[in-house]
Amino acid sequence: MPSAIFAGVEMGGTKCVCILGSGPNDILAQEVLPTGDPAATLGAIAQVLERWQASFGKCKAIGVASFGPLDLRRESRSYGRIGTTPKERWTGVDLAGSFAKRFAVPVGFTTDVIGAALAEGRWGAAQGLSDYAYITVGTGVGVGMVSAGRPLLGFHHPELGHVRVVRSPGDDWPGNCRFHGDCVEGLAAGPAIEARSGGSAVDLPENSPIWQTVAHALGQLAHILVVSVAPQRILIGGGVLSAQPHLFPRIRSYFATSLNGYLDTPEVTSGLEQYIGPPGLGTRAGPLGALALALDTDAGHGAAASPTSAKPVRYV
Amino acid sequence: MPSAIFAGVEMGGTKCVCILGSGPNDILAQEVLPTGDPAATLGAIAQVLERWQASFGKCKAIGVASFGPLDLRRESRSYGRIGTTPKERWTGVDLAGSFAKRFAVPVGFTTDVIGAALAEGRWGAAQGLSDYAYITVGTGVGVGMVSAGRPLLGFHHPELGHVRVVRSPGDDWPGNCRFHGDCVEGLAAGPAIEARSGGSAVDLPENSPIWQTVAHALGQLAHILVVSVAPQRILIGGGVLSAQPHLFPRIRSYFATSLNGYLDTPEVTSGLEQYIGPPGLGTRAGPLGALALALDTDAGHGAAASPTSAKPVRYV
Repeated sequence: MPSAIFAGVEMGGTKCVCILGSGPNDILAQEVLPTGDPAATLGAIAQVLERWQASFGKCKAIGVASFGPLDLRRESRSYGRIGTTPKERWTGVDLAGSFAKRFAVPVGFTTDVIGAALAEGRWGAAQGLSDYAYITVGTGVGVGMVSAGRPLLGFHHPELGHVRVVRSPGDDWPGNCRFHGDCVEGLAAGPAIEARSGGSAVDLPENSPIWQTVAHALGQLAHILVVSVAPQRILIGGGVLSAQPHLFPRIRSYFATSLNGYLDTPEVTSGLEQYIGPPGLGTRAGPLGALALALDTDAGHGAAASPTSAKPVRYV
Repeated sequence: MPSAIFAGVEMGGTKCVCILGSGPNDILAQEVLPTGDPAATLGAIAQVLERWQASFGKCKAIGVASFGPLDLRRESRSYGRIGTTPKERWTGVDLAGSFAKRFAVPVGFTTDVIGAALAEGRWGAAQGLSDYAYITVGTGVGVGMVSAGRPLLGFHHPELGHVRVVRSPGDDWPGNCRFHGDCVEGLAAGPAIEARSGGSAVDLPENSPIWQTVAHALGQLAHILVVSVAPQRILIGGGVLSAQPHLFPRIRSYFATSLNGYLDTPEVTSGLEQYIGPPGLGTRAGPLGALALALDTDAGHGAAASPTSAKPVRYV
């Protein structure tokens, strides 16, 4: 038995994963629940955690890593809540509070993709790095960034999937983001690929020309990252990339072509294969992210950093 | 006389500004020198500072805010130096070291635009904010960001002027950045406007259609900022914007159209006029930036934060 155990809850749009342990090689229990009505779902998760505590003992901290948007600013009156989301009944739900009220332990709260980034830093392909980015390409495109060792946040968490990018030459497919059309998410997420191909993104053959446009958009996203936050490494995971690893050399190639020698540093020249690569934890990064957040919370820095003087966001 | 005095050196491509004092309302001396041969220029600057110290007493710290690229990573062997620059004789010059060796006081070192951002935070339009961006549009486009109260840096300082952006509909001018063609700098900096119009950017009439493309590019840059680092405010200064203030409402409009309601927060809805606006210090932000850096250095955090485990950049 480890000396201390931690609980993580990864809240997803269709399912929630509860996890108990202290790291990827020490998972005591894991359980998946469907995401339904908020009260029922949160009640069922709490019951799982209570049952585990009865079997394994009290956990030291709980990490909640959730789909967003989230209010992560400590001083905000809506801290800990979900913002306006198409999952209507979930808008305004007090996620962090619901766990804090029921369990007398510290509760960390962040986005699913920031959680995954924390797990990659603690146990995966970003170990030892102070500045890195984790991109997930699945039902959406999300980006979690760690800067100077802490999750990067401003008045809001990053939403870099919704950045507009230069299009692949000759490509004028309008994209399928309901806000932006051809932002990165509207071009490269699974639903975009499926809307465009009429089939599954996971099964689309490697030689489909659609992959060029997907790789181009992700190469542009990497260009934006390197000239903005300059991560030491960019990890790209999620269902699309794990099923289509041929995308990596294409993304690197579009990235290098786009940057065009502007930064003459080993990260983006000789080291490019390491610079843009897959996560170390694969599909486990999500639930392990919630667990990493619990460990960070216990260490005193799991609560997301937040601006000290921000005005409240009118989320709800 | 103030109890403590500080010296700042703003290193520019054509001129260097030396400044002595403790803030914008307490400047004891200021002197401009041409930027020529590195050894001669740095020698002349040092003589100015020594002369001032003989008259006004010893300064507590020196801030050096310079054109880039710069190596700002403390653990790097080329920390304090200029990277590969078209100003050929300046490549590899040890700026921070040259002042540290000659003056037995702490020397802060950062980019000119990060310096200007620090001055805006301390005395200008970003006072009280923990997360903000300062964009300068002049002979280039530079961006300095403060995140959680500290300059944002990764393995390199931001170079967001070199981000590629979606073009204004119907506009296919190739841009004039020698690396990227139509990146923001290649579309919106003074030299781009002059290459396109054949005249001076400062004198180009307000009704020139070129301003639409400039505002569009800067609106896209603001879109990138809000979905990446989510600054609480975006300040845009530099020679082009200060001469052409009609750009502000256009930039805000393109920004809002591009974001298309994605973030429903007061910063980017009702508060947009405050969200994207001019700096508070105007053209004084540059030299005051070097001074702000000196004050920050004295307070123990003027040395740029840097990744703890970065590999050295092969700058020289």
